[in-house]
Amino acid sequence: MKIWILGGDGFCGWPTALHLSDQGHDVTILDNLVRRQTDILLEVSSLTPITPISTRISVWHDISGKKIKFLKINLANEYYLLLELLKKEKPDVIVHFAEQRSAPYSMKSAETKRYTVDNNIRVTHNLLVALVESKVNSHIVHLGTMGVYGYGWSGKTPIPEGYLKMSINGDKEKKTREILYPANPGSVYHMTKNLDQLMFAFYAKNDGIRITDLHQGIVWGTQTIQTKQDERLINRFDYDGDYGTVLNRFLMEAAINYPLTVHGSGGQTRAFINIQDTVRCIELAILNPPKNGDRPAIFNQVTETFKVVNLAKLVAKLTGATIDYLDNPRNEAADNDLFVENKQFLALGLNSVKLNDGLMSEIEQIALKYASRIDKTKIPARSLWKTK
Amino acid sequence: MKIWILGGDGFCGWPTALHLSDQGHDVTILDNLVRRQTDILLEVSSLTPITPISTRISVWHDISGKKIKFLKINLANEYYLLLELLKKEKPDVIVHFAEQRSAPYSMKSAETKRYTVDNNIRVTHNLLVALVESKVNSHIVHLGTMGVYGYGWSGKTPIPEGYLKMSINGDKEKKTREILYPANPGSVYHMTKNLDQLMFAFYAKNDGIRITDLHQGIVWGTQTIQTKQDERLINRFDYDGDYGTVLNRFLMEAAINYPLTVHGSGGQTRAFINIQDTVRCIELAILNPPKNGDRPAIFNQVTETFKVVNLAKLVAKLTGATIDYLDNPRNEAADNDLFVENKQFLALGLNSVKLNDGLMSEIEQIALKYASRIDKTKIPARSLWKTK
Repeated sequence: MKIWILGGDGFCGWPTALHLSDQGHDVTILDNLVRRQTDILLEVSSLTPITPISTRISVWHDISGKKIKFLKINLANEYYLLLELLKKEKPDVIVHFAEQRSAPYSMKSAETKRYTVDNNIRVTHNLLVALVESKVNSHIVHLGTMGVYGYGWSGKTPIPEGYLKMSINGDKEKKTREILYPANPGSVYHMTKNLDQLMFAFYAKNDGIRITDLHQGIVWGTQTIQTKQDERLINRFDYDGDYGTVLNRFLMEAAINYPLTVHGSGGQTRAFINIQDTVRCIELAILNPPKNGDRPAIFNQVTETFKVVNLAKLVAKLTGATIDYLDNPRNEAADNDLFVENKQFLALGLNSVKLNDGLMSEIEQIALKYASRIDKTKIPARSLWKTK
Repeated sequence: MKIWILGGDGFCGWPTALHLSDQGHDVTILDNLVRRQTDILLEVSSLTPITPISTRISVWHDISGKKIKFLKINLANEYYLLLELLKKEKPDVIVHFAEQRSAPYSMKSAETKRYTVDNNIRVTHNLLVALVESKVNSHIVHLGTMGVYGYGWSGKTPIPEGYLKMSINGDKEKKTREILYPANPGSVYHMTKNLDQLMFAFYAKNDGIRITDLHQGIVWGTQTIQTKQDERLINRFDYDGDYGTVLNRFLMEAAINYPLTVHGSGGQTRAFINIQDTVRCIELAILNPPKNGDRPAIFNQVTETFKVVNLAKLVAKLTGATIDYLDNPRNEAADNDLFVENKQFLALGLNSVKLNDGLMSEIEQIALKYASRIDKTKIPARSLWKTK
């Protein structure tokens, strides 16, 4: 299939591009390289020594004999270029990762809040409008987030895959209705994914656009089968207070004998998935598209749930690290349970990498190997959810 | 109170500015005059001869002795100007009408779809971010639309004012939960008001911003007590296929012996409100703000419901006009019932102007009086919900 990967230079985008290219698909990356520019502004860099996109692509060609194309485009602002490319290339699938994806970054300042909404909403809406205008029937596979659901609203009822069966109180017909799970975002970033959902629902209904929305948990791990093949293909690993996700931060901290930084009590339960499983899930979603006229297909892209403090204890046990409890910058409950359904991907054959199996190799092959590149001053979270 | 009116030069904004000024409030209009520019691009103009904003304001000053200030600002693009003004002026209330408000216009082309989303989302989000950043505690009163609910989803259960009591099927705790009524927008324009709702919910929760969202029905009528006082204060009356709302279109058609244009069977039930009641509702909302930390207050700003075909028959009976049934450009059910709650405004003392009382004077004083200004070629709806 001809596949576009919007945001294909990023943490999820790059390994997805390689995985799909390896499967024999004709892959094109569309990216404006903003994630690398954000590193410059935040004065941080990936723990792993990522190479420029042109190096990545040429090394992959040398190793695999396969070509990945790259187009530099700002999808939020260059609508007419997007439209022309779409008419010319007619991709079968468009994997959409082209959004600002850090919750702390989205809460950092007025500027980052505005950037997150502007970029994420414009990219998604430009893509939808361009598909309507060009009449190209691409299947959109979009990376959402478990954060669209919030945490704990439905109590012991597991969070379904997107759609919730419910009844209206006092309804005389006693009809069962199915609705998009009520939005309860925890940050401006998460909110943009809720806004995306409503746009997807409208364009699926009005224009028959085919959309799959993947509500992913927190990704951990760095490498996939493809990125491991040459150091110049290595994936990025973020450990800074904005872009570093919680488990990767713990692994890095353990590697340099820095205390594991738990925010609040660590009683927040979160859902996780390994990066290798992410790329497999994207492939499964591509192979199982909805039909024109269907509502958006929604999958929960998660394989395990853990309380943050238990993750810290697990890493501490494996490595001997200590744990530091810091103030939680987020505006959230100190403690929550989380029950999540993920039957759809399991039914499609996802065979997942579990934390207990992969943690040590991640510490040895990534965190310890590149420990000398760490700037310790960048570890603390500096974004605050509330102005003081 | 010090009150800002965003979009205060428009159809609802101008009479609201006059009404609130008349009540003794200190009123400032912030507007970029885009609605007048859109008229130029669509090659249409208000049936009524509206005067420039500076004339409007100086005539009002001459008549009432009251000053309305005017600031030309593009709220979607001039964030830093908005922020400075907010810090300097610290308005008690910000009435937010500054959104592209035509459903047909929003479906006209790729350009108008993108403009509607860009403008509406950016204005709303800029306002929210600027309130957080400036720490000014203004109460936002926003004009939403009944269209956020869609039509008919909850069957015979009346559409509540924003929040729906429901139960999750299979919930072991059998808990009653209250959710934002599920989004079901019928156009890109309506969708932007659903997106607004999610942004309001987030900023009310995270930052304690005080917000009232008014889900208004279709407005009919032109004049209010204030706009009638001098012809130079007259409100706009749109009759073109994009901005003309259904009842105003019928009145104008009747005045010139043009058949009343009903789209589809006319079996769609819609909610209505007179423009005089709109400005009273805004005032009531201002006088009854939510508290910091409350979820957004939501009112249904409607006073009557009618099937479109019955409205046409009513106008036909009063005027002797004939009815023409045309294809419906919208992507919607041919027929629907509509049950809407509006107890909150009634409890606050709203005493509404009913269609049966006001229709004839509207025909005589507006439609017939200005009939010579009509360009008949602009009457048909030209926007299509689906590309062919």
